[in-house]
Amino acid sequence: MSKASVLTPRADDFPRWYQDVIARAKLADNGPIRGTMVIRPYGYSIWERLQAELDERIKRAGAENAYFPLFIPESYLRKEAEHVEGFSPELAVVTIGGGKELEEPVVVRPTSETIINSYFAKWIQSYRDLPLLLNQWCNVVRWELRPRLFLRTTEFLWQEGHTAHATEADARDYAVKILTDVYREVMVDVLAVPVLTGRKTARERFAGAITSWTCEGMMGDGKALQMGTSHELGQNFAKVFGTLYSSESGEQEHVWQTSWGVSTRLIGALIMAHGDDRGLRLPPRLAPTQVVVVLVRDEEGAGSAATQLVADLKAAGHRVLLDDRVTQAFGRRAVDWELKGVPVRIEVGPRDLAGGNVTLVRRDDGTKRPVALNAAVTEVGATLDSAQAGLLAEATRYREDRTVTVDSLDGIVEAAQSGFAVAPWSVVGEDGEVRLAESGITVRCLQRPDGSLPDASVTGSEDEPDLVAVCGRAY
Amino acid sequence: MSKASVLTPRADDFPRWYQDVIARAKLADNGPIRGTMVIRPYGYSIWERLQAELDERIKRAGAENAYFPLFIPESYLRKEAEHVEGFSPELAVVTIGGGKELEEPVVVRPTSETIINSYFAKWIQSYRDLPLLLNQWCNVVRWELRPRLFLRTTEFLWQEGHTAHATEADARDYAVKILTDVYREVMVDVLAVPVLTGRKTARERFAGAITSWTCEGMMGDGKALQMGTSHELGQNFAKVFGTLYSSESGEQEHVWQTSWGVSTRLIGALIMAHGDDRGLRLPPRLAPTQVVVVLVRDEEGAGSAATQLVADLKAAGHRVLLDDRVTQAFGRRAVDWELKGVPVRIEVGPRDLAGGNVTLVRRDDGTKRPVALNAAVTEVGATLDSAQAGLLAEATRYREDRTVTVDSLDGIVEAAQSGFAVAPWSVVGEDGEVRLAESGITVRCLQRPDGSLPDASVTGSEDEPDLVAVCGRAY
Repeated sequence: MSKASVLTPRADDFPRWYQDVIARAKLADNGPIRGTMVIRPYGYSIWERLQAELDERIKRAGAENAYFPLFIPESYLRKEAEHVEGFSPELAVVTIGGGKELEEPVVVRPTSETIINSYFAKWIQSYRDLPLLLNQWCNVVRWELRPRLFLRTTEFLWQEGHTAHATEADARDYAVKILTDVYREVMVDVLAVPVLTGRKTARERFAGAITSWTCEGMMGDGKALQMGTSHELGQNFAKVFGTLYSSESGEQEHVWQTSWGVSTRLIGALIMAHGDDRGLRLPPRLAPTQVVVVLVRDEEGAGSAATQLVADLKAAGHRVLLDDRVTQAFGRRAVDWELKGVPVRIEVGPRDLAGGNVTLVRRDDGTKRPVALNAAVTEVGATLDSAQAGLLAEATRYREDRTVTVDSLDGIVEAAQSGFAVAPWSVVGEDGEVRLAESGITVRCLQRPDGSLPDASVTGSEDEPDLVAVCGRAY
Repeated sequence: MSKASVLTPRADDFPRWYQDVIARAKLADNGPIRGTMVIRPYGYSIWERLQAELDERIKRAGAENAYFPLFIPESYLRKEAEHVEGFSPELAVVTIGGGKELEEPVVVRPTSETIINSYFAKWIQSYRDLPLLLNQWCNVVRWELRPRLFLRTTEFLWQEGHTAHATEADARDYAVKILTDVYREVMVDVLAVPVLTGRKTARERFAGAITSWTCEGMMGDGKALQMGTSHELGQNFAKVFGTLYSSESGEQEHVWQTSWGVSTRLIGALIMAHGDDRGLRLPPRLAPTQVVVVLVRDEEGAGSAATQLVADLKAAGHRVLLDDRVTQAFGRRAVDWELKGVPVRIEVGPRDLAGGNVTLVRRDDGTKRPVALNAAVTEVGATLDSAQAGLLAEATRYREDRTVTVDSLDGIVEAAQSGFAVAPWSVVGEDGEVRLAESGITVRCLQRPDGSLPDASVTGSEDEPDLVAVCGRAY
């Protein structure tokens, strides 16, 4: 591999390393208003890939995209008591519009349950209108006191799904379907982050939900990151907004609802789950550029060989870039591609070419080897598959090595210093959660001992016997 | 065709017809805050198609997507004098964040020249960083006193491109390239709206630009709609934000810039340019659903024939939907697909099938004819091509019929009551513009007599001899 990069080593200062990666790989920048973020083209290209993978699965799950206004009347927020309590401290409020003081202040959406419910109440008449499955891609604003790029920003981009169903069981099944078939699938199969899935405790639930499901990843410092949540809202919002439907038997019933979202935080997850001291390591299925063909020197046909190889790799269906900036130092270019985490780099130079070879460098494990030019396309395909599996295996091993099963609160506090502690929920309980919080530890999720989801029908209680609590420090 | 629809006839009340189409085709709804808009799934699916067509061409023109914050410090807006004067009356201002009064009020972006320039100033060092070509897809807010769905809303969705160049000529060429290769191409070739392109007069220029280029369409009531603009900003923003680069010869120079945008207003254009008394008529290249296969009754193999036809049409690359809601009245379903403007409807019923036929109904001209089931895929392909060309030809004819060449201000006022008036710019001039404005008429653009663009290098003046002014009433 090329010479060491310019990042703070992860072991020295993980948060600073994180900031360094974002700056050096040109992923994002701080905005002028505290906590806001500029997503630079490379960071945004990762977001576009995430959007494509998520959007395809969201549509497959039957939801349609729509768009609701950024501005919500303040009175809407106040309708659901828990919801307003949860979001009030984070609101941005518009008080002046068109040069005049507004009669009613307007809230910049922190999430859209309220405004969407006001339309559900209007659009839904009968059981034939159900389920109503909507999603929107948008920006939301939550005033952040301790912002961190991608992880917690005053404005962030996300998708938020909102659905209405005729029965509690249908809503529950849909919330779980989104968790597993959309979120977990994208996180595990595309992002190569082996998330744990489970139910949030009452303490950690979304403001206004009766059940919150979550995907939790372990980052490179052993801390947890909540990567996506899917909520059963019960009839909480339906009751305050009067979202009723007439059932097949002609009764007026309140709908049952879900909401679910993932955000640009996932880019933070990618950085922290896979990054190393040389920068990002992107899983091939997600990477905006899967292969970069680096022309070492444009001599003895190397230029045309590189161009042809790019064309062949594109024809094979890969996302490929040609780096022919031969006037710039080769070592610096190589360092830059490593920083950006491009999974495979192929170096094409006259010396290798003389022997019919190019050099294939694999970002995830750092291996470097010559391959025959005429076998390069095949080798790249196999390497991309192998790198995708390799990153997932490495992250899984890392998490398993840092997960300890314990059976006391003290044991949890100790184990959570370096990773996840798994303990019987009966040992923790709501009182234990309060004590753990004093040490900066939270219950990330409740699972069955085999890691599977708790019984979804035991809604809103944690008294299914034998559940375990996965505990950790979290972002 | 099926029985008359439920819309106000266009000839009776065009604005009301427009609102009816939006409501009945479920394109959008009014938001709770005056002037805001809910884009419903069908409306949003049209926007997604527009985004795809535009984004592909924007990327082909070399621009990369990024994302800049929604919130802009008020002081940024004040830096460019014309810009702040243009936008001040329309601003939404956040004065409370996280429960506290903010020290400096924050503006919700009406457009992003200022905030993006503050980053260009930071990112651009040398001529090697140029051109810097960025685009973003986002929401913007301009407080509207006379809102109209899609056409003028307090919040709307758009793309805004922002670029920096080393030379004036490079910036000028890029602004024109976006106008012609992205905007005009999408509008003419995809939306089938035969837009006129030209330069805005000084009076109609974007606040802060030195030249504004525009695409102007004629709507179904003879009025003009500005459908997209591309601006040369000169060095106006570069000077106030200090956006400098060192040239090859080592001099510090201000960059030359462009900005350009199109918005959800294009959906309004589609409705008004092609809609008829039965609803929308979508051009096939844009339509989210190009073909709907309507099962009349599920008898004598009609259901499986319809399903097979849908599969065959999809395999041929068309966007196809199956309507098998046989419990609902057939006539009502047909009216609904006409409202939604789906270009081709194929009715599959046992009676036709007995003779080996299905019925093909073409939305643009209303023709209805039997086609052999085994020729349906071929017939559909040809019909879609023909409908695309037909809509463009019809809109072009309509515009030509309502465009009159005149040579006096009185002549313009008269002709502009029903369409466009084309007059020598020398007859109008800046004084004439003021007089026309009293009659609600504006110069939509300046062109050469043959319809081509004025000389782009005669920047900021309108004194190229022989230019004509296209005048009209406008949305």
